[in-house]
Amino acid sequence: MTPEERPDTRTVSQVGEFGLIRRVTEHRNQPSSTLLGPGDDAAVLTAPDGRVVATTDVLVQDVHFRLDWSGPRHVGRKAVAVNLSDIAAMGAVPTGLLVGLGCSGEVTAEFVDELAAGMWEEARRAGTALIGGDMVTSNQLTVSVTALGDLRGGKPVTREGARQGDVVALAGGLGWSAAGLAVLARGFRSPLSVVGAHRVPQPPYEAGPAAAVAGATSMIDISDGLLADMAHVADASGVSVDIRTDQLEVPQRLLEVASALGADPGDWVLNGGEDQALVATFPGDRELPDGWRPIGRVRQGRGVTVDGVEHTERAGWQHWRH
Amino acid sequence: MTPEERPDTRTVSQVGEFGLIRRVTEHRNQPSSTLLGPGDDAAVLTAPDGRVVATTDVLVQDVHFRLDWSGPRHVGRKAVAVNLSDIAAMGAVPTGLLVGLGCSGEVTAEFVDELAAGMWEEARRAGTALIGGDMVTSNQLTVSVTALGDLRGGKPVTREGARQGDVVALAGGLGWSAAGLAVLARGFRSPLSVVGAHRVPQPPYEAGPAAAVAGATSMIDISDGLLADMAHVADASGVSVDIRTDQLEVPQRLLEVASALGADPGDWVLNGGEDQALVATFPGDRELPDGWRPIGRVRQGRGVTVDGVEHTERAGWQHWRH
Repeated sequence: MTPEERPDTRTVSQVGEFGLIRRVTEHRNQPSSTLLGPGDDAAVLTAPDGRVVATTDVLVQDVHFRLDWSGPRHVGRKAVAVNLSDIAAMGAVPTGLLVGLGCSGEVTAEFVDELAAGMWEEARRAGTALIGGDMVTSNQLTVSVTALGDLRGGKPVTREGARQGDVVALAGGLGWSAAGLAVLARGFRSPLSVVGAHRVPQPPYEAGPAAAVAGATSMIDISDGLLADMAHVADASGVSVDIRTDQLEVPQRLLEVASALGADPGDWVLNGGEDQALVATFPGDRELPDGWRPIGRVRQGRGVTVDGVEHTERAGWQHWRH
Repeated sequence: MTPEERPDTRTVSQVGEFGLIRRVTEHRNQPSSTLLGPGDDAAVLTAPDGRVVATTDVLVQDVHFRLDWSGPRHVGRKAVAVNLSDIAAMGAVPTGLLVGLGCSGEVTAEFVDELAAGMWEEARRAGTALIGGDMVTSNQLTVSVTALGDLRGGKPVTREGARQGDVVALAGGLGWSAAGLAVLARGFRSPLSVVGAHRVPQPPYEAGPAAAVAGATSMIDISDGLLADMAHVADASGVSVDIRTDQLEVPQRLLEVASALGADPGDWVLNGGEDQALVATFPGDRELPDGWRPIGRVRQGRGVTVDGVEHTERAGWQHWRH
């Protein structure tokens, strides 16, 4: 966070666009891959591989986050995390972030400082930086992030390379965000292990490039829910994916929270979204890289099964359809 | 536009997120620089130069456009044009666009088709394509675009290289969008030459890379107004910029519209925003490339003058300060 001597209670309209841009970008370190950072018509960064990976995700207040459940720093971290997770899911390392922020003039400048601090914090966790952006007036708080990445000479790991016999493997946690959401929806604020996971996902950034190096045949990040996202892989690859519940252990913490709420922890793990875990498929004879554990197999056929049985429960989150 | 046999009156909620993404991306051609287009966690494109130029601009309904003044196709074109103009202003050629679209579930799918058609139309004008994006629910129509570009081995042309004695030159028109805005604000819908310029700017895309090749020392696109944007160049370069009104001819059409409205056409040319013309500085002895005409000189000192006199009128548009 930019050091501020005392709390600033001015609003965004009082500070103005250029003042805000200064607050968000000044005193921040850029990695050596940033050849030209914020402040000009566009940023310039190195693309040593000769290719660039690019993805964009938009977060809207009261759709993707609620300000009574998450603070601005959480929102900033989450907006960056969901994008960097997509970069990791291609097997790439992030090289820069562009942020489009829409907010009302009545928002305090300190709120924007906190949002920016969260974005920088998450960017740094993944070894990257905010290289550019735009700030505009909007009634509804909207954070659009674009993340860029480098493949370091590797093949991009898409959704369509899964082959019969491959091992399905997971990096990161599943069900934590859904559990946190269930807790918040009941009016509770703890346990923090699940509430925090809902506010800010913790994608296993390094597991993505590691999977690519280890020969992953397909990869995706779990944003809509394990079964929904595995259906995308199965469709794109023309195969069937079988998830094994004896391998997909439900963490003790989730069992406790589910028991307290009278909820089904298995549903959180299979259908909960927004954990931004990574799932990849690897040839059956390959040793899994660090951080990856097997959770199923790729089979002949179509669709997704759980323990060999078709699973026809709700199929994850789609915008405008809920 | 995707060929549709008959008008589709369904809403965005009826078509759903995945259906919409298909409508916006199917049957569209990707340039050979797109290695992986829409549909996976991220897009992959070539960065032959080993560097990538990146910029983002967000357009919000009733802030950047009004749907009673512009149709969805205009909005789509404008959202892409303002971003591609920033790529041109660095001296780069565009290689891809990512779009974050926020809209209400009540919007018709046909509206989104038109918006997308406008984006593809403008992308094609500049030789590029939509390579990825995100669609989310939002109360206020919001279009976030990120544009990527390639420098083709050249130096990025920033705002800070203007040197005393340089010629200030213009590519594209100035004042047209402001004139169109004035006409629309009075409740008129014509003349189309100015109204159309307000709805969709026509940045001189090719003039940017041409200026870079010709040795431009600085460049910027005029989005806030000539004087406001030249102040950014003067500040960044540590020089003064003098604009010559005898060189900055006001087009006959603007004189006529101004006379009909009782407005000052000179103010439109000097302070009107959103034309996305390009202004660059060139060493005094250099021949200007095609499409560029001189409009002033770089001098010692600070700030912007008009015919040698300090110009202290309104200083362009800033968000939240108006």
